[in-house]
Amino acid sequence: MPEARITPRSEDYSQWYQDVISQAQLAEPANVVKGCMVIRPHGFAIWEAIQGDLDKRFKATGHKNASFPLLIPMSFIQKEAEHVEGFAPELAVVTHAGGKELEEAYVVRPTSETIIGHFFSKWIDSHRDLPLLINQWCNVMRWELRTRMFLRTGEFQWQEGHTAHATHEEAQEEVQRMLDVYRDHMWDVLAVPVIRGVKSANERFAGALETRTVEGMMQDGKALQCGTSHDLGQNFGKAFDVMFQNAAGEREYVWQTSWGVSTRLIGALIMTHSDDDGLVLPPRVAPIHVVIVPIYRKDEERTAVLEAADKIAQDLRDDGLFVEVDKRDGMKPGAKYFEWERKGVPMRLEIGPRDLEQRAVMCKMRIAEADERGKPKKELLSWDDLGVEVGKRLDAFQQLLLDRALAFRKANEVEVDTWEEFEAAFAEGESKFVWAHWDGTTETELAIKEATKATLRCIPLEGEGYEIAPGTCIKTGKPSAQRVLFAKNY
Amino acid sequence: MPEARITPRSEDYSQWYQDVISQAQLAEPANVVKGCMVIRPHGFAIWEAIQGDLDKRFKATGHKNASFPLLIPMSFIQKEAEHVEGFAPELAVVTHAGGKELEEAYVVRPTSETIIGHFFSKWIDSHRDLPLLINQWCNVMRWELRTRMFLRTGEFQWQEGHTAHATHEEAQEEVQRMLDVYRDHMWDVLAVPVIRGVKSANERFAGALETRTVEGMMQDGKALQCGTSHDLGQNFGKAFDVMFQNAAGEREYVWQTSWGVSTRLIGALIMTHSDDDGLVLPPRVAPIHVVIVPIYRKDEERTAVLEAADKIAQDLRDDGLFVEVDKRDGMKPGAKYFEWERKGVPMRLEIGPRDLEQRAVMCKMRIAEADERGKPKKELLSWDDLGVEVGKRLDAFQQLLLDRALAFRKANEVEVDTWEEFEAAFAEGESKFVWAHWDGTTETELAIKEATKATLRCIPLEGEGYEIAPGTCIKTGKPSAQRVLFAKNY
Repeated sequence: MPEARITPRSEDYSQWYQDVISQAQLAEPANVVKGCMVIRPHGFAIWEAIQGDLDKRFKATGHKNASFPLLIPMSFIQKEAEHVEGFAPELAVVTHAGGKELEEAYVVRPTSETIIGHFFSKWIDSHRDLPLLINQWCNVMRWELRTRMFLRTGEFQWQEGHTAHATHEEAQEEVQRMLDVYRDHMWDVLAVPVIRGVKSANERFAGALETRTVEGMMQDGKALQCGTSHDLGQNFGKAFDVMFQNAAGEREYVWQTSWGVSTRLIGALIMTHSDDDGLVLPPRVAPIHVVIVPIYRKDEERTAVLEAADKIAQDLRDDGLFVEVDKRDGMKPGAKYFEWERKGVPMRLEIGPRDLEQRAVMCKMRIAEADERGKPKKELLSWDDLGVEVGKRLDAFQQLLLDRALAFRKANEVEVDTWEEFEAAFAEGESKFVWAHWDGTTETELAIKEATKATLRCIPLEGEGYEIAPGTCIKTGKPSAQRVLFAKNY
Repeated sequence: MPEARITPRSEDYSQWYQDVISQAQLAEPANVVKGCMVIRPHGFAIWEAIQGDLDKRFKATGHKNASFPLLIPMSFIQKEAEHVEGFAPELAVVTHAGGKELEEAYVVRPTSETIIGHFFSKWIDSHRDLPLLINQWCNVMRWELRTRMFLRTGEFQWQEGHTAHATHEEAQEEVQRMLDVYRDHMWDVLAVPVIRGVKSANERFAGALETRTVEGMMQDGKALQCGTSHDLGQNFGKAFDVMFQNAAGEREYVWQTSWGVSTRLIGALIMTHSDDDGLVLPPRVAPIHVVIVPIYRKDEERTAVLEAADKIAQDLRDDGLFVEVDKRDGMKPGAKYFEWERKGVPMRLEIGPRDLEQRAVMCKMRIAEADERGKPKKELLSWDDLGVEVGKRLDAFQQLLLDRALAFRKANEVEVDTWEEFEAAFAEGESKFVWAHWDGTTETELAIKEATKATLRCIPLEGEGYEIAPGTCIKTGKPSAQRVLFAKNY
């Protein structure tokens, strides 16, 4: 049985994170498979909601899903020089199969640019075959030393978009289009107000000309890279001979992009919204929107209350909501409340014998202001128009979470102009989003990281401290084109 | 560019199958990854339709999705004696990861009974935790010597349901419930009229007490096992110590089931419905229901025709249909017809300048009776009520495919009472569904296979030749309880 206590955030943020996951039964470490995890039904249902929303957005922008092999010949990984350097230390290798040692080993895909490049070269012949817009939902494997559930695990679930275009300009538009798709999904569905930006050369994807990113602020002031979109240029095109005949009849290499988000987004949700009572979920990804807890003492009451609860549940389900009626006997209402709060259900409806007379239910949101007695506010809702009233409150709850996260981010962003201020912002155990000038070199970026553990999250395309105005680097005093975003990160 | 010709079925059924897949761009052999395949967008969209329908049925019967590790410790596979014997020859093994040789090798999951058994033992404690009803959509790997696209590949996509119950009776009910879910999906959505039955001991899943199966008849008279549902008894419960406390306070092993279908179902679709012109798809799994081909000569015509085509397409899309307008210039209508027929689009609408005047479109179904001139029938449909008329015709087409497949199966089933008749039914290159008496022994089953290549598909629970009446075994003359189903198989 899981330990019932959730460590408060103030005591140990990292332990709090694990406790929330465990108490909400989202996932657990696999242990018997090093660095891997099991995603339990309540966690996987969140991933299904994320998939459902993103998949619609991908299809609306012309992408189609496909499925490529899990295994990649070792030689493929080695064809793009930066790519192999970036991924070689993390590869899991299949050396034996069907009872024999293989002539050439395969790696379990850490990402699929190479194998997809190979097939693109077979499918693309003419400019009429372009753009080619493919997405794959799948598992990938990167053997990491330090793992943390959802954020960094040996195996993880993700989607990887792979596209090929006739011109660099079109590919660049695609990179930005999909970054914007991610941004819209994260703001509007996850209520995670990410900042869009460009990665420095040092933080770029292995094999890309440029990487764009969406960065979210977690409750401890650290940044979480929530998704990336890469301009691959012609690097993989040249490595895998992906060519097309242009309208003038000449053979050219295609321009490629790739972009991905993963189950890490569940980690982003937890660390953006949850509290010391457990998981908090935005309604748009909540596997259960409403839990109805029937309250009764006598058997006669039980029958009538359960009947009313079922009726209300069915009405709300007909409105498209996910509703549970918690009918467990031998468990007090308080214990049920406690459990559903930990699971992050946005709304609870309590219904007892008195409510039947009034044709009403008591409504309590997962996050509620205090009433005059200092207890979380509840309100009585009539059965008439219940669907509309519930819908309104869930919409308001979605908005509340976004507003709260945005206010938190703004309260924890600072513009900094001196090295002393910069160091202070990243004192032991501290992190903020720090907007500071940087001289544009990897050398300075690494020196800053070495001194403060803060990393250059992105050269932003937007944000509180965003304004394209020159200045001088906080570390070297050399000229800088604009402020960039620093934070400690996951 | 793919070779344009589809080998006729009468010439070479196996080559025809590959040609249909290649011409419809459903998939292609990976080649660089032995025995594996790439599922291309048109093929993957069929899989998404299958997944969408099955996933709803699984959830409606109380199952929840989860995600378990891809890698399984080698020692886990060895814990259930029959299981390791069945799967050991087909395992792909990861021996190195993160740049080091692993202390214990992992296998890439061939199926997940073992690893899921491990986690069930952690999650199940009391009878209140039962039944536990889990499903996983994922990839699995079985290193096969002879592979064929969709039917048998080194890696494949599937779903595997895994459940735990307090009693054997409940587990047996679950086995039959999920077999029935498969049957309903296959008849009602895939239009593949499978027969439900029980596998002989020899054909049982490695580690099961009993395996139930749904068997479909392909156009060459061979059987395809389309899905299986296993009563695992307490075998994995004992191997992985999955115990619960019953209401009386005693510790007991759980009773488990597992059940799965895979991308093999796409092979079943192809070999049940397609013809020498290419793919034929039931509307309920067709990625495109309707293709609209605009016909015009002059530029003025082009604008008006395309505008009308777009308007009709949008109206049909608003009715929930998947519609493509083929606007490619420099390609004759006939070439477009040819291509969309190969891709299995159930309905084609042609629209030209004369149709605009009449506010009509010419409709041609993928399979149509011949008209009085011996050409496939077309009919003129008015723009008014077009959605309703199109819907009717797609429903009728769905029904036509099922009726046709069922009639084919009935025409190719025979009851056989002598060994001579039995041998004749399975003469060189021939297969049928043969209902014959069998003495119930593995020895006889294997002798029949050795002599005729026919395998015992199932002890049926239904079907044309199904009647529980005793008889004598066609091979040994020993007593038999009922006729069973023999066929050559994929």
